[in-house]
Amino acid sequence: MNAPGSARTVTPPEHVFDWLDGIAEQRADAGLTRVLRARSAEEGQLDLAGNDYLGLARDKRVAGAAAAAALRWGAGATGSRLVTGSTELHAELEYELARFCGAQAALVFSSGFTANLGAVTALTGREAAIVTDKYIHASLIEGCRLSRADVAAVAHNSPEAVEHALATRRKQRALVVTDSVFSVDGDLAPLRELSAVCRRHSAALLVDDAHGLGVLGDGGRGAVHAAGLAGEPDVVITVTLSKSLGAQGGAVLGPRRVIKHLVNTARSFIFDTALAPASAASALAALRVLQDEPELAERVRTRANELSTRLHEAGFAVTVPDGAVVSVRAPGPDDAVAWAARCAERGVRVGCFRPPSVPDGVSRLRLTARADLTDSEMDRAVTVITETAPPQARR
Amino acid sequence: MNAPGSARTVTPPEHVFDWLDGIAEQRADAGLTRVLRARSAEEGQLDLAGNDYLGLARDKRVAGAAAAAALRWGAGATGSRLVTGSTELHAELEYELARFCGAQAALVFSSGFTANLGAVTALTGREAAIVTDKYIHASLIEGCRLSRADVAAVAHNSPEAVEHALATRRKQRALVVTDSVFSVDGDLAPLRELSAVCRRHSAALLVDDAHGLGVLGDGGRGAVHAAGLAGEPDVVITVTLSKSLGAQGGAVLGPRRVIKHLVNTARSFIFDTALAPASAASALAALRVLQDEPELAERVRTRANELSTRLHEAGFAVTVPDGAVVSVRAPGPDDAVAWAARCAERGVRVGCFRPPSVPDGVSRLRLTARADLTDSEMDRAVTVITETAPPQARR
Repeated sequence: MNAPGSARTVTPPEHVFDWLDGIAEQRADAGLTRVLRARSAEEGQLDLAGNDYLGLARDKRVAGAAAAAALRWGAGATGSRLVTGSTELHAELEYELARFCGAQAALVFSSGFTANLGAVTALTGREAAIVTDKYIHASLIEGCRLSRADVAAVAHNSPEAVEHALATRRKQRALVVTDSVFSVDGDLAPLRELSAVCRRHSAALLVDDAHGLGVLGDGGRGAVHAAGLAGEPDVVITVTLSKSLGAQGGAVLGPRRVIKHLVNTARSFIFDTALAPASAASALAALRVLQDEPELAERVRTRANELSTRLHEAGFAVTVPDGAVVSVRAPGPDDAVAWAARCAERGVRVGCFRPPSVPDGVSRLRLTARADLTDSEMDRAVTVITETAPPQARR
Repeated sequence: MNAPGSARTVTPPEHVFDWLDGIAEQRADAGLTRVLRARSAEEGQLDLAGNDYLGLARDKRVAGAAAAAALRWGAGATGSRLVTGSTELHAELEYELARFCGAQAALVFSSGFTANLGAVTALTGREAAIVTDKYIHASLIEGCRLSRADVAAVAHNSPEAVEHALATRRKQRALVVTDSVFSVDGDLAPLRELSAVCRRHSAALLVDDAHGLGVLGDGGRGAVHAAGLAGEPDVVITVTLSKSLGAQGGAVLGPRRVIKHLVNTARSFIFDTALAPASAASALAALRVLQDEPELAERVRTRANELSTRLHEAGFAVTVPDGAVVSVRAPGPDDAVAWAARCAERGVRVGCFRPPSVPDGVSRLRLTARADLTDSEMDRAVTVITETAPPQARR
């Protein structure tokens, strides 16, 4: 603009962020303002909104492991993983997680978000091509943006579109990126077909199994395991520790050389404080509960199916769940918010997804089943959702 | 490349990641391979490497708060902040943190890394210019890359260079980004001068006070508070909960409209599981300890100065600390690693920073003081570092 000292008009400090007000107004006009609501520990709502699919976050073995670890190891890890942040808890969790999922090795990050950033950026770069499903999770999209690779986002769940993009890419090295279970509608990616396409075109496959771990596959080993792809030399998996495992954090699983590469190059790993000992310990405890009670995975799938079937019978446009997520179409964003609010008033917490958190612009209620839902809770959920629905919500 | 079905050679799956081996070899040849070492809970090393500046991570009040929160609230937050992840603990922490630091409002993220990503991206965008100090933390750099703004990284700690970049920018809206205390050498940014430059050029100022909170300013209120800039309408602060506060997580502090904007637009906030209740509770407990014992902040600064003075007297090239970090120059990366290893053998854990984690390519030991270091621990630290030093390490 102008040189210092020139006649340019200076904005007074109190007006420097005025531009935010216009954006806030547009948001309010569109009915898209988000507000944080803090829940209490005893609110007693029936939760169909969280991602605690196996009901383990408050399990005594899991919460107890968190408490014991905090007292033994301290509240925080005190540094990054490469300095002071790696404890025996992190190492044990990595070993058991890799073994459980059938991968060679695992690396724990402070969140699923940073795990995805780290995996995508470290495995690509300027000299690579990335082909993604257009509905992948935001953290994977951020990873693609950061990577500086050529990125092609193709049609949802279309191995043909992936194949075309791989065949016409301009870089030799390639990574195909997909969610296993897509977070909004809970639908499953065609992993076997995607792997076959990758192999025909010399590409690696990265699967975010955040919603598959603990829910799909033999005893909850995840969607990649179920597809027979765990442990494959060209497949990398990312997971979260904050959904089925009831804790916090994320991890990357894959060939040992991939994990070593991440330790040395993934900036969201190197430059981040390690996961707190309490979170590592509770994820580990949850993993052991899941191994002791492999039926938990089937139980959450059964509950999700029941929820979907009963809401379909009640006349709603509802997805047939592949995992724990059931999506119910709402007429519009305002209706979705009001519907979710009426459910909450009646003691049932449901998720409400609206733009820009939905890839297709369609607002919906997002319900998540839990392995520990009782029959009477199921009845209550269906009754409340049905009785509070806006008339246009029915098919 | 070629069309599907054409004669192109296909890489077998087991060779798809072969390119990583060449990179690993180069790294090994350069002596830059990083390996994770898991520490035990009882190793008894004298820690001069972690960022637990006030010694609060293992404080009974802080670790006890983590344990109690895990038992009361569960091991994980169960969802993103906008769905089920906001608890009263998060709200209390945000309220007290903002009040303590003198900001209007605060927003807690799952890590300092994601807080920086969120703040930089949400406050800039294609229509903005960013001017950064060239030594800012990696997470801020990633935020700049993600932002799609025009980014100018200018000379270290040079308000003149920042002024020139602001004066010659091509976008109206501008954000200046700096660390308060730089993580590698522990030197302080000229915050007052930077703010004055920002105001002459209608720019906002974002300061990462990760290493300032708990260490600098009145009772540890941080470097921004010390500079008289907390609560200013054009200043945004980011902090971590994982250093002086001994926990995990990060936060953004600033004008209320900035915080509301982040809730609605920061992708690393919206699409990430909330911080675990145990981490929120322990950060809150640590903040209260710091308010009860404001002398902790001065104590860590005193210890850092003693460490620096004594190592200078012993003949090393050592920084004069502005905060808790003391940097000691090593002859090269291999020497730095061997020096740190010899310290560890003698029971003193020191940080070892080498390329690519150092902005200037200079390898060094990085020592961090703690408020709870005893006189005999100080003696032991200086003795061990001195006796294990490579001969060329002396000035």
